[in-house]
Amino acid sequence: MRRSERLVVMTKILTDHPNRIVSLSDFGNELKAAKSTISEDLAIIRQVFQDMKLGKVETIAGAAGGVRYVPLASMEKICRTVGLVCRELADPQRILPGGFLYMSDLTSAPDLMTSVGEIFATRFCDRKPDAVITVEARGIPIALMTARALNVPLAIVRRVSRVTEGTVVTMNYVSGSAKRIETMSLSKRALQPGDRVLAIDDFMKAGGSARGLVDLASEFKAEVVGIGVLVETAEPPEKLVKEYESLVVLENVDPEKRQISIRPSRWVTELMGGGDA
Amino acid sequence: MRRSERLVVMTKILTDHPNRIVSLSDFGNELKAAKSTISEDLAIIRQVFQDMKLGKVETIAGAAGGVRYVPLASMEKICRTVGLVCRELADPQRILPGGFLYMSDLTSAPDLMTSVGEIFATRFCDRKPDAVITVEARGIPIALMTARALNVPLAIVRRVSRVTEGTVVTMNYVSGSAKRIETMSLSKRALQPGDRVLAIDDFMKAGGSARGLVDLASEFKAEVVGIGVLVETAEPPEKLVKEYESLVVLENVDPEKRQISIRPSRWVTELMGGGDA
Repeated sequence: MRRSERLVVMTKILTDHPNRIVSLSDFGNELKAAKSTISEDLAIIRQVFQDMKLGKVETIAGAAGGVRYVPLASMEKICRTVGLVCRELADPQRILPGGFLYMSDLTSAPDLMTSVGEIFATRFCDRKPDAVITVEARGIPIALMTARALNVPLAIVRRVSRVTEGTVVTMNYVSGSAKRIETMSLSKRALQPGDRVLAIDDFMKAGGSARGLVDLASEFKAEVVGIGVLVETAEPPEKLVKEYESLVVLENVDPEKRQISIRPSRWVTELMGGGDA
Repeated sequence: MRRSERLVVMTKILTDHPNRIVSLSDFGNELKAAKSTISEDLAIIRQVFQDMKLGKVETIAGAAGGVRYVPLASMEKICRTVGLVCRELADPQRILPGGFLYMSDLTSAPDLMTSVGEIFATRFCDRKPDAVITVEARGIPIALMTARALNVPLAIVRRVSRVTEGTVVTMNYVSGSAKRIETMSLSKRALQPGDRVLAIDDFMKAGGSARGLVDLASEFKAEVVGIGVLVETAEPPEKLVKEYESLVVLENVDPEKRQISIRPSRWVTELMGGGDA
């Protein structure tokens, strides 16, 4: 096999398995090449990924060592993705009775959710989460794609306890906006004590669900080390969780004038500003 | 940029966007290379993908033409994935009261669900689906990964109608096994008349949910052109839908003896047999 051919195979394998360590021997066996040759190939891939802002290819030393591809969304990609979400959500055809916005097509769009998952993984990878959690159902695609990019398991919190979940921890909580009592339920097997957990959801209004996830995780003696949501509403400004990151802020929906006011969240705006400076 | 470097970038882009057509000019602009050079690069990638069974790289002629990566799970990959699912599900620790099996960790495992999604995409791509549908919640990860591999949208059928779904079509149906009346609800915006729809779910017992998806799709004047489930139960042998594909068959769970009997489904077994012959 020639170098050019090996590079194709190695790039494919690394891209298909974000954050998974592939040993040099595995590559060597697959490609019938010496470790030194594989090392040289990897140096090329590492450099190209860096130059073209395709993510990072990291070398891990030691017995369990090897190489892994860390998806890092570039500033350009973050801005492009957030811009797309803003444009899509600003379409007045999305306005539903009661001033709600239809966004289920976006939150389950595979390509867009792959990008959003990479962005959250980029944003939170330094918190070293062991798992991602979300509440069913609309947050699942984003959470799954974030978990995939981080190569950690996903735990899905149910709103109704199911027999197929086995022994569960069920918790009542107050939804922040509607002040209703809601229920969350998670299988005892889904999280381990000491787990560092990343909570991902599609939407935050008052933050009741996010607060619920934090409290539920603590019942497992696990700790929420980050909260990411695709869309937050500007109102109420005080949320039930202090630290969280959103991609876009929904300022206002005016069903009369059929106008939607939406903008990138602050850290994305700063990123965009930093790009111009 | 050298050829070896271009191959890395092109392989990364193709792998990241299954079934999306990338034009030669897009590659040319990104890589600052002539179309003829890009064509030669693609010939190498196409050959390596074919030789190493990494999927197919197809050329699409015409004005909207270009090249696309079609993920095709190899026979080896299908057998490996199904074997892993069988081994995992055969673990007696998964037995729950009532003879149920805990499998939520598998159905939300990003890496495994990526493989299962690729397998369903491989199995059903010739049906040319326009969309994937599933019922919340446990089927969502598999369905999302199938939709991603096929590059089509995902529509999530809800069990409870939500205000954020806008106008919905709600349908009652009889769950095949428990003979309970259940409800399915899907936003009017989620499917278009004439859509060819692939129904994906995690589990099939009597096939009530699958039957429900078929009927619900017909309310949208859409047609279910394929049904894929991860696990089917051997009992009852007569399902409420005739044509469907599963990956594994759960023969029996014996909570007393703590024994689980599970096997690959028939088409997978045939594939394995074909591999040995």
